[in-house]
Amino acid sequence: MTGAEVDLAFDEQTYLPAVAQDAETGDVLMLAYVTRDALERTRETGLAHYYSRSRDELWQKGESSGHVQHVEEIRVDCDGDALLYLIDQEGGACHTGYQSCFHRTIDGEVVGEQVFDPEAVYE
Amino acid sequence: MTGAEVDLAFDEQTYLPAVAQDAETGDVLMLAYVTRDALERTRETGLAHYYSRSRDELWQKGESSGHVQHVEEIRVDCDGDALLYLIDQEGGACHTGYQSCFHRTIDGEVVGEQVFDPEAVYE
Repeated sequence: MTGAEVDLAFDEQTYLPAVAQDAETGDVLMLAYVTRDALERTRETGLAHYYSRSRDELWQKGESSGHVQHVEEIRVDCDGDALLYLIDQEGGACHTGYQSCFHRTIDGEVVGEQVFDPEAVYE
Repeated sequence: MTGAEVDLAFDEQTYLPAVAQDAETGDVLMLAYVTRDALERTRETGLAHYYSRSRDELWQKGESSGHVQHVEEIRVDCDGDALLYLIDQEGGACHTGYQSCFHRTIDGEVVGEQVFDPEAVYE
């Protein structure tokens, strides 16, 4: 570790995309956005936080479902304008009940695994 | 395969983020943006295309470096507003010579592997 914190592009962009990847399987689970505050909360708590651009609010993944993401490592890309959260996912990442939000091909074929019943989780 | 093409959020957003993941190792290599045209070119050619928001132009990854990305599968997230390219990367994905653009932790520790000399590739 160098201790030198990496420059992030929050001065140019309010929201940076953050990709959540399962630290063990390597599966890409979801993509959401973070603000400086959301990133700060993630680092403080060790739980993935994001910022909803449509609801205009900071949220903790799994706050209502219990499907939290334990963040093992945060990586930054070469330009400092995208983040990668390496995580341990409780339950499933997708609100539809799938392990990953990327459970469909562009042709509509379902390639992912459903791991919970969304109706039982989100009332 | 269902044959039913997935709805994409291009009506709401001009640019959608696309994550490139090594189809074999699972490494997340880069994140860039696509327009409808960039996605179309990707599907037509089987080579990853993106759209540069700063240069305002469509580009093919590896056009100048030769480090092209052969796209094996394209996935779409649950909301249709993010894409995942599963790819076979020639050379390295990052213009700095690293295999992945996500080769640093947020604390500045280098965790990725340098696979080419950028000065020899980009003149």
